Amino acid sequence: MVSAPRDSRSVGLVQPQVAHFAEALPLACGRELADYELVYETYGTLNAAKSNAVLVCHALSGHHHAAGYHSEEDRKPGWWDECIGPGKPIDTERFFVVSLNNLGGCHGSTGPTSINPATGKPWGPDFPPLRVRDWVHSQARLADYLGIDCWAAVIGGSLGGMQAMRWALEYPERLKHCVVIAAAMKLSAQNLAFNEVARQAILSDPAFDEGRYLANDAIPAQGLALARMVGHITYLSDNAMAAKFGRDLRSGNFNIGSEEGVEFQVQSYLRYQGSRFSGSFDANTYILMTRALDYFDLAREYDNDPVQAFGHARCSFLVVSFSTDWRFSPQRSQEIVDALIAADKPVSYIDIEADEGHDAFLMPIPAYLAAFSAYMRRVGGDA
Amino acid sequence: MVSAPRDSRSVGLVQPQVAHFAEALPLACGRELADYELVYETYGTLNAAKSNAVLVCHALSGHHHAAGYHSEEDRKPGWWDECIGPGKPIDTERFFVVSLNNLGGCHGSTGPTSINPATGKPWGPDFPPLRVRDWVHSQARLADYLGIDCWAAVIGGSLGGMQAMRWALEYPERLKHCVVIAAAMKLSAQNLAFNEVARQAILSDPAFDEGRYLANDAIPAQGLALARMVGHITYLSDNAMAAKFGRDLRSGNFNIGSEEGVEFQVQSYLRYQGSRFSGSFDANTYILMTRALDYFDLAREYDNDPVQAFGHARCSFLVVSFSTDWRFSPQRSQEIVDALIAADKPVSYIDIEADEGHDAFLMPIPAYLAAFSAYMRRVGGDA
Repeated sequence: MVSAPRDSRSVGLVQPQVAHFAEALPLACGRELADYELVYETYGTLNAAKSNAVLVCHALSGHHHAAGYHSEEDRKPGWWDECIGPGKPIDTERFFVVSLNNLGGCHGSTGPTSINPATGKPWGPDFPPLRVRDWVHSQARLADYLGIDCWAAVIGGSLGGMQAMRWALEYPERLKHCVVIAAAMKLSAQNLAFNEVARQAILSDPAFDEGRYLANDAIPAQGLALARMVGHITYLSDNAMAAKFGRDLRSGNFNIGSEEGVEFQVQSYLRYQGSRFSGSFDANTYILMTRALDYFDLAREYDNDPVQAFGHARCSFLVVSFSTDWRFSPQRSQEIVDALIAADKPVSYIDIEADEGHDAFLMPIPAYLAAFSAYMRRVGGDA
Repeated sequence: MVSAPRDSRSVGLVQPQVAHFAEALPLACGRELADYELVYETYGTLNAAKSNAVLVCHALSGHHHAAGYHSEEDRKPGWWDECIGPGKPIDTERFFVVSLNNLGGCHGSTGPTSINPATGKPWGPDFPPLRVRDWVHSQARLADYLGIDCWAAVIGGSLGGMQAMRWALEYPERLKHCVVIAAAMKLSAQNLAFNEVARQAILSDPAFDEGRYLANDAIPAQGLALARMVGHITYLSDNAMAAKFGRDLRSGNFNIGSEEGVEFQVQSYLRYQGSRFSGSFDANTYILMTRALDYFDLAREYDNDPVQAFGHARCSFLVVSFSTDWRFSPQRSQEIVDALIAADKPVSYIDIEADEGHDAFLMPIPAYLAAFSAYMRRVGGDA
């Protein structure tokens, strides 16, 4: 997959691949998907023993394109390029990295924008609701497809970290290490509330039309933009926003009562983020993904006892949190660590001092990269 | 105004009054209001020396009805009934309390829902944008109207606290005490961002029609509801939400893929709050009020130096913050206190341990009521 890296620390040009699964996948909601496709990318080389494979799980609005570039003209690399590549924490000189678009996504894997074979039209709102465990099950099928019995590590940040933890409980024999970054065992009421506002913004956009917008050749752009704006505020810390924008005025002076109503830099920034997102993400997928987040509750079917839940794990853990992350605060990570210790599981934990809030997990923060790299050096699987 | 109190700690039945001002009010935006009305309530009795008057300034969605009941059937008292009444912190046995609906409001004072004399139609989006100082100037006119030369105290929480501080700088000779609760000298970038999302929710509701919804006999109910939901999350602490809702399921069990999509108690609560608000508040007023919040910057015209700004004050200050308030955190209050100390002004400060977040300023928290009462006992003005 790798050719002509722009620099020695990039995986270079990469190409998505598609795996088709003809066997029906039973889902947590009681329905099933008769067949489905997963789009994925790989970086690095699978060794003969197939022991150096690492699965990267994406967060709410992520996708399979985690590292490298799709073309020479590509301006931006994959979303986790800071952490995946030669000499980076997930070192592609050592590991064979698999990164997929989750089921229900809108970047090539089967999801609400795909054609429902029963109707010949896009699934839209009729696509089955998914849970984190459904993703994990479909990822296990992808592992089978690639001939990978056991991952050297399953790794994810945010919602991706939840998938990594679920892997440790659902398939304890199929991963050696579990890396959980900026995640939580379940959402708080405040997290649920923000997701609810985001969904309401989409649902109340008239263009949404109960999710059937594709049939109308429309998108609920305003609703999606609002949802993204709400999300974006929760990804950044108050400090990060202060450092980035402060109260800087767009025009350098008050322009009170302006037509446009944009006075502060932070307003233009949010509007830009919102409109960029609404042009590139599917609204039904966003609803599906936030619901999966809401429903995730690691220990729910283990008598709500995380120690009992983690008792099933057989892997080692790295847990990482960031000091100013208020979406999934360090306290949430410490709860994971406490439960792992009580369950007598090997766990390393680091709380990184960082001003960037939840978004820090995507950033090249030296202490973070160093700790992540140090842990990954302990993960076996050299070619 | 007071009759038949329901209990000895209530101001009982109260009636709003209206003051008409025929003299034009010049506004910070450069425009003026040719004439206007302010609706207000009073509690307690003005003494002969007119030295026991206290002005209460309301917050974003507040109004003049701060204490007591409008009728025997009234289920809920005014919004600050916990703090205003016989024996309460703002003791109506001692003080003559004035509480108004601010200019631009939607509860009786001249605002976007009033008739624009130039057109004979509601002002709507053409109502002039207001700044906190405009409110303070109009409140000074109300003081003149009531024959009050000098307030024993000007008191407010949140946006109300900003008005109280502005009073201290604009009319230093006209107040003896300034009580600033859960406020800040200016909004942070995060605060601005939440206000922007709230406004965008309203602006993008098609029923808003660029603010001309009244002419269409419509209201942007969805947009207002969303705005309120966003606001509401920021008024509560994560802890308060956890205590109030946790992850409690509405039906006691997962109902994944339900038509309605309401699984968690916190979702129903937010939807209820949102829809209740959208039926009772004017969208143009909400936009106007959030913009006034955004623009407030206490020290802007004092070389951005709060010490220089407070140097103009002649009153004593009480500053109160709440430990879990993340909208206007204790740090923001401490900045006010630091500036007051550096400006050599008398200031008392208390940070109240409370789980209720920003909303705590409305709650009967014993340590809060005790500190507030103790300070108010030092305020002169007994009848």
